[in-house]
Amino acid sequence: MNHEKYMRAALHEAEKAKAIGEVPIGAVIVYKDEIIGKGYNLREIDQDPTAHAEIIAIQEATDHLGSWRLNDCVLYVTLEPCPMCAGAIIQSRIATVVYGTTDPKAGCAGTLMNLLDEPRFNHQTAVISGVLEEECSSMLTHFFRELRKEKKRLKKMASES
Amino acid sequence: MNHEKYMRAALHEAEKAKAIGEVPIGAVIVYKDEIIGKGYNLREIDQDPTAHAEIIAIQEATDHLGSWRLNDCVLYVTLEPCPMCAGAIIQSRIATVVYGTTDPKAGCAGTLMNLLDEPRFNHQTAVISGVLEEECSSMLTHFFRELRKEKKRLKKMASES
Repeated sequence: MNHEKYMRAALHEAEKAKAIGEVPIGAVIVYKDEIIGKGYNLREIDQDPTAHAEIIAIQEATDHLGSWRLNDCVLYVTLEPCPMCAGAIIQSRIATVVYGTTDPKAGCAGTLMNLLDEPRFNHQTAVISGVLEEECSSMLTHFFRELRKEKKRLKKMASES
Repeated sequence: MNHEKYMRAALHEAEKAKAIGEVPIGAVIVYKDEIIGKGYNLREIDQDPTAHAEIIAIQEATDHLGSWRLNDCVLYVTLEPCPMCAGAIIQSRIATVVYGTTDPKAGCAGTLMNLLDEPRFNHQTAVISGVLEEECSSMLTHFFRELRKEKKRLKKMASES
């Protein structure tokens, strides 16, 4: 499996989130060397706390296969999954998760904990991390830097008006 | 807050799942003493691994409020949340979760672990358990007993035909 190729597709999804002002996180799901689900973060636009890239990609993939079971699928995501998304990955029985950069605040695929490798759950998912880490990480860093700049600019405008 | 009253509403949702052959789990979300979100398990009908009672109720509640933040809400659910639903509860900043019966296989609100009380996440949710435990538990036990009976009956029919 060409991990970098599919992580580039996940990064492409993240770009779509960035273009509409959402935190740039993207995901794709691959089955038999074909992308069957794609998603990007839509939390703010949809005002839906479950509208993470992974959840949207999982729903698209299960629609495509006509089954909630994604046993033979690989999920690629630019940022390490949060507890909700790790849980959705377990629920959908995804075989492998490949992520780009770690999430020190909420990462549940190895950073704060690894829910995907919890032996007491009825499914375990293999984890591969650090694929295109630099691109995935810098996309987020750049986004938050611009956001801070914009906030500062607005604050300055407000104080001058 | 009248916990039993709202757990009865969650049990009523679970009845809807049972009526269509889904594992009977139901949830409601209460804001200012009003139910603003309801959901019942639809995993098999929708073939969607994320279609748990809690996720559906959260999406309905956030639609109702026009915000992904459910800080002042209480979620009632008949069965202890799984990791995905516990994660969605954290994501939506729900203040309190009240559940009926524990889930020894996947419960992440105190049984296998308590994700809702994890200090490293950016939100913690209070947990109250055991409200109408007997009713919540027996609805599930009865459902699985009937399912096993039906399986046995079909197996017998197949061997006799």
